[in-house]
Amino acid sequence: MIGKLNHIAIVVPDLTLAANTYKSVFGANVSDPVSLPEHGVTTVFVNLPNTKIELLHPLGDGSPIKKFLDRNASGGIHHICYEVQNIIKSRDKLLGDGYRILGDHEPSVGAHGKPVIFLHPKDFFGTLIELEEI
Amino acid sequence: MIGKLNHIAIVVPDLTLAANTYKSVFGANVSDPVSLPEHGVTTVFVNLPNTKIELLHPLGDGSPIKKFLDRNASGGIHHICYEVQNIIKSRDKLLGDGYRILGDHEPSVGAHGKPVIFLHPKDFFGTLIELEEI
Repeated sequence: MIGKLNHIAIVVPDLTLAANTYKSVFGANVSDPVSLPEHGVTTVFVNLPNTKIELLHPLGDGSPIKKFLDRNASGGIHHICYEVQNIIKSRDKLLGDGYRILGDHEPSVGAHGKPVIFLHPKDFFGTLIELEEI
Repeated sequence: MIGKLNHIAIVVPDLTLAANTYKSVFGANVSDPVSLPEHGVTTVFVNLPNTKIELLHPLGDGSPIKKFLDRNASGGIHHICYEVQNIIKSRDKLLGDGYRILGDHEPSVGAHGKPVIFLHPKDFFGTLIELEEI
C-alpha cells in the first residue's frame, strides 16, 4: 500500500526563523513561504535529496494546526505523509481492517492538490499519518 | 550541511504489533526485530523506497526511550535523522552558531555504527534531530 515517504510536516512558531535555520545553518534548499488559505497554513518546503520537510505555521483563526501550536509552543512534528497509488482502495482496506480514518472518510484535496486522508494516531502508535495519492 | 533524511524513529508500545501493521496493513518491507542492548532499544526497520522508519521499543531498565514511552503511552515520533558528511565540522559549526548539542558534545556511535550527535529540540522547533555521518 505505502510507497515513498512524501514529507514530514513540522509546525513551527516562527516560520521565518525556521526557514532561515534550515537554509543558513543546515544549508538546505528552502522555498519561499507559500500561503494556503484554504488549508489554514503557510508553508515552507525544505527539499532534501530524498524527501521533503514541510514547515507549517497557522494561517487564520480557523487554522487546523492552531491548537497543536498552543499545546506545543516550541513547535513539533505534526504528521508524516506516505504515498499511495490509489487512495480509495487504501481507505477501503483500512476501514475494512477496522482502522479509523479522520473526518467523513472522503478524501480531501491536500496541500499539493492531490487526494489525501488522515489516519487516527491512536491506531498508528501515536503518529498522525497522511496518505496521499501520487 | 544536511543531506538525505536517513530515518524517522517512532517509539511504539508493542513492537510486534507495530511491525505487523507496517507489514500486513501497509504492505511495507519490514525487518526482523534487532536488539541493541548497548543503545537500550529493540528496533524494527521499515524500508521505504526513499528512506527508513525505525520502530523502537525500550530494552532494559536504563533505556533512553523509557521515559518517552511513559509520557506517550500510545507511542510517538521520537526523532528524525539527517545525514551529514562530516560530524565534527557539523558539530563545530552548530556550536559556533550558538546551538546546543545534547550530552558532552562528543559524537557517539549510533545504532548504525556511525558517529552521531543529537541537537537540542528547543533550538530546532520542538524536533529532536540526530545528525549521522555517512
